[in-house]
Amino acid sequence: MAKGARTRATILRVAAETASLGGVARLNLQPLADRVGMTKSGLYAHFGSKQALQLATLEYATELFQAIVVAPAKTEAAGLPRLAGIYERWLGWPANAGLPGQCPFLAAAVEFDEGEGPLRERLTRLFRDFRGVIEQLAASAVRHGHLPASTDAAQFAHELLALRYAHQWAAGFMRDPAALERARAGFARLASRAPPQRP
Amino acid sequence: MAKGARTRATILRVAAETASLGGVARLNLQPLADRVGMTKSGLYAHFGSKQALQLATLEYATELFQAIVVAPAKTEAAGLPRLAGIYERWLGWPANAGLPGQCPFLAAAVEFDEGEGPLRERLTRLFRDFRGVIEQLAASAVRHGHLPASTDAAQFAHELLALRYAHQWAAGFMRDPAALERARAGFARLASRAPPQRP
Repeated sequence: MAKGARTRATILRVAAETASLGGVARLNLQPLADRVGMTKSGLYAHFGSKQALQLATLEYATELFQAIVVAPAKTEAAGLPRLAGIYERWLGWPANAGLPGQCPFLAAAVEFDEGEGPLRERLTRLFRDFRGVIEQLAASAVRHGHLPASTDAAQFAHELLALRYAHQWAAGFMRDPAALERARAGFARLASRAPPQRP
Repeated sequence: MAKGARTRATILRVAAETASLGGVARLNLQPLADRVGMTKSGLYAHFGSKQALQLATLEYATELFQAIVVAPAKTEAAGLPRLAGIYERWLGWPANAGLPGQCPFLAAAVEFDEGEGPLRERLTRLFRDFRGVIEQLAASAVRHGHLPASTDAAQFAHELLALRYAHQWAAGFMRDPAALERARAGFARLASRAPPQRP
């Protein structure tokens, strides 16, 4: 990797760590430059604007998310096992990515609740794409007979996201020691739409 | 009401509206003073500090929440009807309170995810108290035979909060026209733990 690319990667790594703690919206050039050990103008040379840096940080976090949460599904059995695997990795992904805080996407969804702009647009697209992945997995679980034919895949995806959101709240904000147990029990109940398995 | 109390009430009203749009953490004295049409020092005379203003805004929002979401439950049939009523009013409470944005408590839970302090402490207590209310209602629904005896009231409360959180995300951030329908379908599924009703 050329020096410029290495420096850029270092900046994005630190930016993602910072975003996991304080959100993408509050990602400012000067504090980040201080953390990376660069001048603000040096950082500016890499990204050109605060917004470009924030967008690049989202892309970096998306690549981490894909690698940690989604990619391993390829080797899992199709249907419910794959869905369960993705959910389990989704719960723990910030820690497994070495991020010190919480899921930066969920925090960003609150930050960019209002207004318009390219960051909000990018974020809603990320969420729609991932919700689409969950919907397809739920539909596949139906085809494999792991979920009843009456399952509404979009509703299933919505409720899975609800459980993940509540996990962030319970683990991060409430610091509830039962958070992970609740997240898993919620999934078990959601998946118990499953008809009895024939041996 | 004395003039001082009226002015204080006006400030808190505008502060709650502002918090529903941008969060409690970003509630600053100067922009609020501009919106109310006062000087910053005039505002300061009422609250003494930014943190005191933020805490007072939380208390004000809590009173609104109690009046709009919780109080009407008194006249509802005990058990599941009361639970369903609280949930329905909880979904729509910011609009019913005349707040232009989203639930300021849910936004604040993201803002105060990290760190410590009186605001975080007050917020977690508010959430614990309300979760306790939901748990009691779920337990009462069990006693009335509206939910099966095997219902874990704490898990039920967790999942209801998950649905409310996901509603904020779907309605506010994703601007999903199906958000309310999803929130209601989620409740119906959660409550369908109910055993078949005997006539």
